[in-house]
Amino acid sequence: MNINIYFAGSIRGGQGSKSDYQWLIQALKQFGTVLTEHIADDHLLKNEQLLTDAQIHDRDFAWLKESQLVVAEITQPSLGVGYELAQAMFLKKPVLCLFNTTKGNRPSAMIAGQPYYQLIGYQEVTSTLKLIEEYINRTFDEQT
Amino acid sequence: MNINIYFAGSIRGGQGSKSDYQWLIQALKQFGTVLTEHIADDHLLKNEQLLTDAQIHDRDFAWLKESQLVVAEITQPSLGVGYELAQAMFLKKPVLCLFNTTKGNRPSAMIAGQPYYQLIGYQEVTSTLKLIEEYINRTFDEQT
Repeated sequence: MNINIYFAGSIRGGQGSKSDYQWLIQALKQFGTVLTEHIADDHLLKNEQLLTDAQIHDRDFAWLKESQLVVAEITQPSLGVGYELAQAMFLKKPVLCLFNTTKGNRPSAMIAGQPYYQLIGYQEVTSTLKLIEEYINRTFDEQT
Repeated sequence: MNINIYFAGSIRGGQGSKSDYQWLIQALKQFGTVLTEHIADDHLLKNEQLLTDAQIHDRDFAWLKESQLVVAEITQPSLGVGYELAQAMFLKKPVLCLFNTTKGNRPSAMIAGQPYYQLIGYQEVTSTLKLIEEYINRTFDEQT
């Protein structure tokens, strides 16, 4: 299997979950290409200063359209991730949302109450691998 | 003028901007009906525990559809507000985004880089009244 995966995580909203993003991006790579691998980059905010907001928006939206699957880590509240989740639904992409149940509030009711999204809560990010694999197999109806 | 206004602000994402939300909701009332007035309610999180996430989503989405104008305070990162901003664009509602330039990072590039949205930065929330009034007059082509 080699699908294009759009990984969504908070950038300017705060990077308190970055180590989980790094783990998830590495884990997702076994199923395909992670178009937004830069989200876990330690120099992300600095590198993105070279781009205008419109350039970042247009690049990320082009990647979203190219993807076959969206995986969002939604523990850290983020305006951009919320926007991307709605856009992904409009583009009819399968969307898997992961959140750490030991940190912060429950995810927004606008996401948790929207049946289009598949939500999975976790305590340890490493426990999500099996669930991600099952979700991908179910969604793409293939055995990896 | 009496328009239906959908005010969007962070709830579970953190309520650090609540006093600004309260001020903005009162200010917006002179232009019409604020459908989401409860966002500045001190008992909001407690009251919403009586509803399921799906009930909150469906109620808020119905209000969004009923509105003629969306005003979002986007200083506090919020998954729900990002989702609502994308939905508002799909519903072709005029959208005004306000943010406090003295707090936190710049708003997400997904919002600041999307030309559909009108963004206004402020240092003191009270300074936004004249700008909101001008935006509403321009958008609805009326003198209040």
